[in-house]
Amino acid sequence: MANLTIALDAMGGDHGPPVTIPAALEVLAEYPQLKFIVCGDKYQIVPLINDIALSLQQRIEVLHCPQVVSMGEKPSQALRNKTQSSMRVSLDLVQENRAQACVSAGNTGALLAMAYYVLKMLPGIKRPALVTAIPSAKGHRTYVLDLGANVECDEHILHQFALMGSVLTEKIDLKNPRIGILNVGEEEIKGSGTTKRAARLLKEDKSLNYIGFVEGNDLFTDKADVIVCDGFVGNVAMKACEGLAKAVIESIKSLASENWLSKVFAAIALPMLKKLYRQMNPDQYNGASLLGLRGIVIKSHGNASKEAFKYAIEEAINEIRHQVPEKIGNRIEQALTDRS
Amino acid sequence: MANLTIALDAMGGDHGPPVTIPAALEVLAEYPQLKFIVCGDKYQIVPLINDIALSLQQRIEVLHCPQVVSMGEKPSQALRNKTQSSMRVSLDLVQENRAQACVSAGNTGALLAMAYYVLKMLPGIKRPALVTAIPSAKGHRTYVLDLGANVECDEHILHQFALMGSVLTEKIDLKNPRIGILNVGEEEIKGSGTTKRAARLLKEDKSLNYIGFVEGNDLFTDKADVIVCDGFVGNVAMKACEGLAKAVIESIKSLASENWLSKVFAAIALPMLKKLYRQMNPDQYNGASLLGLRGIVIKSHGNASKEAFKYAIEEAINEIRHQVPEKIGNRIEQALTDRS
Repeated sequence: MANLTIALDAMGGDHGPPVTIPAALEVLAEYPQLKFIVCGDKYQIVPLINDIALSLQQRIEVLHCPQVVSMGEKPSQALRNKTQSSMRVSLDLVQENRAQACVSAGNTGALLAMAYYVLKMLPGIKRPALVTAIPSAKGHRTYVLDLGANVECDEHILHQFALMGSVLTEKIDLKNPRIGILNVGEEEIKGSGTTKRAARLLKEDKSLNYIGFVEGNDLFTDKADVIVCDGFVGNVAMKACEGLAKAVIESIKSLASENWLSKVFAAIALPMLKKLYRQMNPDQYNGASLLGLRGIVIKSHGNASKEAFKYAIEEAINEIRHQVPEKIGNRIEQALTDRS
Repeated sequence: MANLTIALDAMGGDHGPPVTIPAALEVLAEYPQLKFIVCGDKYQIVPLINDIALSLQQRIEVLHCPQVVSMGEKPSQALRNKTQSSMRVSLDLVQENRAQACVSAGNTGALLAMAYYVLKMLPGIKRPALVTAIPSAKGHRTYVLDLGANVECDEHILHQFALMGSVLTEKIDLKNPRIGILNVGEEEIKGSGTTKRAARLLKEDKSLNYIGFVEGNDLFTDKADVIVCDGFVGNVAMKACEGLAKAVIESIKSLASENWLSKVFAAIALPMLKKLYRQMNPDQYNGASLLGLRGIVIKSHGNASKEAFKYAIEEAINEIRHQVPEKIGNRIEQALTDRS
């Protein structure tokens, strides 16, 4: 039986152990070969696992960590000062091959900085990328990268994002995914110098199924399976969508204080919209992956619920089983060989 | 009585005269000093105004234009070949001072290219910007620029966007608006080189109420009154939000085919959500303004309804009354004087 050990940053996120531990226990019950090394404050963690079945307890190791990276902490400071934090120790476990993946709902910037520092890049990879799957209305998924790991990306970095995204879709059994470059228009003459140069590179690479430029609204259509962009654009677009979703929910809430029909509408609409929102909120859907490193790192949304955090853990299991880092390493090596 | 003449591109948009003319007639009835020069195919326009009151007819001049810029036409080709189009003639009227503003629901790229070519920039302005007001849930408006006129912007261009946006909010009686720069995080160390350099420029400019970096979700909060960004980011973020809104409406439509409770929900929710969507869809809210030119150009969304197109016309009236181009010219001149 293959080793399936996940290092869990139990302290990360807005809720910490009360969300991360119950989520972990439920996933543990579903995957008999799974083990957790749970990193964090043992005084908060142990009481939450004391009463569970022995068969589950045997597959949990608690590693006490005296430090926590707070949500507002500067990445550079966390990197320097928080070497005993649950986040850092979880990443160290992956680096030491004691775990195959790390899952954290903690401070994104700190996680990126620490993962980059601890795990290092795969050979030939220029920059890591944060990627997530956006579910569209029809059940289709679009993988979007980068969502904020790199604010400035040249065409070669975007090309590597396309290769990494292409590997990632294999885990949902999608070979030869349609790759699009996010742009301000679909015509070839549109866009920045970088997007035009990236378009040439992707078109030349016969290992990729490049379909051309796509626009912002195509994040939610089924035009492409993988959409590449620099982390500045990806981050702003995702957060703008989050902001819109919240604003719509607020608007409907305010209806509840108007007349009786509005009240009825709000009472029916709110739970359903919130469910939709959770489904469409990419960070909460199944966790974002940090690609390009020598190890698997899954970032869950900070205010993820137990259900959402379970998705993030399952995403880690999926990537372990599909050996995502190894395959990315091979694909990039192949691309470099082809070019030379 | 001040002259208030608007050149109307009657042919622009997905619907053309059946939407633009009824919208114009309703606005005409509300503003007794308003005149229209309606540009387009007289055979389509004249029948739509034949039956109206003489007092309104006297304030409409129809200028027959044999050409139309189509929605999918390349801007460069439109600029070269469509000198007799309703769009081009409307802009010419502004350039010749026969009209104070032009309103069009036509091809955005062609309108930008033609407006830039026909009207020219105000002295000292580096690049024009497309701006619109995004209404947040609480009735607050955030002006966002640029939405796609310029894909690459350096810090000096972003600084001018801040000055232009600051002038624009005066027309809603908001002095000293809070200006934010769109970024991937709020901390000063976050972002691209351009955003950091722009932050320094905006902070140094004591004529601006610069509040720092804002994030994508702040497009829908009341944190800032004016948010500046390059046109690539602005365009992608807006279109992503449009895509999300459409996807949510599609999701709810699909509920209507499930069980009876879903059917009831969908029947109640859809009209209300569509209304919300129209309110929050920035292009349809009140038209986007092209700032920085020697004249007023308002771009309405291509598939605007009559109501939405009326907003665009009213936006033009507002900008004429507030002498937006003159004030922008003065503000930029002042900024250039202060620096020298």
